[in-house]
Amino acid sequence: MQPLRPAPTWSVETWLNTPHPLTLEGLRGRVILLGSFQMLCPGCVQVGLPQLAKAYELFPRDQVTVVGLHTVFEHHSAMTEVALRAFVHEYRLSFPIGIDRPNSPLPETMARYDLQGTPSVILIDRQGRLRLKRLGHVDDLWLGAQIGALLTEPLTPPIASEATVCTPEGCTL
Amino acid sequence: MQPLRPAPTWSVETWLNTPHPLTLEGLRGRVILLGSFQMLCPGCVQVGLPQLAKAYELFPRDQVTVVGLHTVFEHHSAMTEVALRAFVHEYRLSFPIGIDRPNSPLPETMARYDLQGTPSVILIDRQGRLRLKRLGHVDDLWLGAQIGALLTEPLTPPIASEATVCTPEGCTL
Amino acid sequence: MQPLRPAPTWSVETWLNTPHPLTLEGLRGRVILLGSFQMLCPGCVQVGLPQLAKAYELFPRDQVTVVGLHTVFEHHSAMTEVALRAFVHEYRLSFPIGIDRPNSPLPETMARYDLQGTPSVILIDRQGRLRLKRLGHVDDLWLGAQIGALLTEPLTPPIASEATVCTPEGCTL
Amino acid sequence: MQPLRPAPTWSVETWLNTPHPLTLEGLRGRVILLGSFQMLCPGCVQVGLPQLAKAYELFPRDQVTVVGLHTVFEHHSAMTEVALRAFVHEYRLSFPIGIDRPNSPLPETMARYDLQGTPSVILIDRQGRLRLKRLGHVDDLWLGAQIGALLTEPLTPPIASEATVCTPEGCTL
Repeated sequence: MQPLRPAPTWSVETWLNTPHPLTLEGLRGRVILLGSFQMLCPGCVQVGLPQLAKAYELFPRDQVTVVGLHTVFEHHSAMTEVALRAFVHEYRLSFPIGIDRPNSPLPETMARYDLQGTPSVILIDRQGRLRLKRLGHVDDLWLGAQIGALLTEPLTPPIASEATVCTPEGCTL
Repeated sequence: MQPLRPAPTWSVETWLNTPHPLTLEGLRGRVILLGSFQMLCPGCVQVGLPQLAKAYELFPRDQVTVVGLHTVFEHHSAMTEVALRAFVHEYRLSFPIGIDRPNSPLPETMARYDLQGTPSVILIDRQGRLRLKRLGHVDDLWLGAQIGALLTEPLTPPIASEATVCTPEGCTL
Repeated sequence: MQPLRPAPTWSVETWLNTPHPLTLEGLRGRVILLGSFQMLCPGCVQVGLPQLAKAYELFPRDQVTVVGLHTVFEHHSAMTEVALRAFVHEYRLSFPIGIDRPNSPLPETMARYDLQGTPSVILIDRQGRLRLKRLGHVDDLWLGAQIGALLTEPLTPPIASEATVCTPEGCTL
Repeated sequence: MQPLRPAPTWSVETWLNTPHPLTLEGLRGRVILLGSFQMLCPGCVQVGLPQLAKAYELFPRDQVTVVGLHTVFEHHSAMTEVALRAFVHEYRLSFPIGIDRPNSPLPETMARYDLQGTPSVILIDRQGRLRLKRLGHVDDLWLGAQIGALLTEPLTPPIASEATVCTPEGCTL
């Protein structure tokens, strides 16, 4: 039985919409909904980012932290920091967004999480462990259930293997 | 502090989409998503019933039971059993649906739950207690979180008052 | 080259949302958007009727007449006149609606127009000639173009064959 | 009675999705649907550009020419040509797009048309005259009717004043 592994640390130099850098350590005790996106990715604009924005509105912020991660792996000269700032302004995104540190072929955090593309949805539990990783759109009702489960589970689940787990092949409730 | 109360029993004579009548007792141990609707209520057709159908597809059926409750309180000669059967057929609804026993001014189950209209969303926990009651549409992400929380909470929560509670004024997460 | 044929007369005994019965003769000089529907047909409720309602709001009523035609060919005991009246009330449909005279296997007007199902969209020009007949949803932008063309064409087009024509295989712009 | 005025010429140096620059003169005889947009304008991405793309698919290209005009009046360092090319690639826009010549405070073509913002919808008739100018989203059904009317009207309308006209206060059908 696969033990749950700690979520990889983030490699972010620049943060938007937050006065202080966010870290996994600093967010311990909260459920983290991390959304990987690119500002010129249509699926991100149409469904991924609106889902993050809605979660940011719906959940108490001391319980669920919503974080956007700008993971640029193409069109680098188009998706610059200045372009992202204009995008965030025009789309009125107010949740914290970190710019993943550029690297080739994938930015650093994206590589550490072994993400396959954008948008990707990641959930990290209150103990800092990776619990969900999904490429593409995740239905609101299902994602809500994952978040609700992570909010409710005891900090030391008696049997880790009964908790929600997630692999590249999918996730169990 | 308000203790959680048992969900009122259902008063249903006719069931669709199930070989056996459903009862709260028989569903003990499962989370119940109960959706009150009328077949000629636009909000039910547009958002309430599609949400029930999606929940029926998404959640394991031995964990979450989805039930529609046809609570007719107007246009009685239009929303008959034969009309409901045609509606259920045409809209391809496959989850169990009970016809609330007619009464005046409200059908019996609707009155017992003190529902204000349709659509209404109700959640009953694994111990048969009423945990959510909402008139109108409930956002998928938020409803999912309630369901996920009820699926995860211990069968005997140490402090009942910390659990999700719901009053006519609204619900806490 | 196929000459344009007069639209078949309507066989309607009961009208809703209009003090007087509507007839093709009485509407001569106006473009008619006729929408065939059944109140328990999901495609009608989701797209067909909203399109009629929008056209009813958008176009000047002395230029474009919007008419719904309730063409019941199944579930007769569910889609009665009393049920239709409840449906029209709940969905707040305000354009004129005629109940197609029942017949077997198809109601009379539906048979005369040789409609294949619901929803169907029909356009009749200012001279009372059938110009468009389509089963299923017709895109707003395209339907608008047909209506705009019929509103603008001279009452005696110099060459009828150049005008928009419509056959069961489809229509030309 | 206000005579219809010729549409102002376009000031575009760079064209995408077309081997040759487009000009009003070269398009004489066709109805032109011109959509002014900015790649980081949410309304453009959500409704304006999809409407142009749909029109490009629906209408015969020798009758209706669809043109996008990238009218950047803010965030200049974000909405560069290289960024626009990435955007057009990712959103799979295939209709011709011209980059409005930068100027302050408004790019040149935008100023000539006296556009108030993005998205804006413009219709030019087959004689090169401005017939519609609208800020914001224009309903498909209504826009389709304008296009259909322009496609159908005689090249020399007997009474210009009866044709569709458009002012900053709105347009008549």
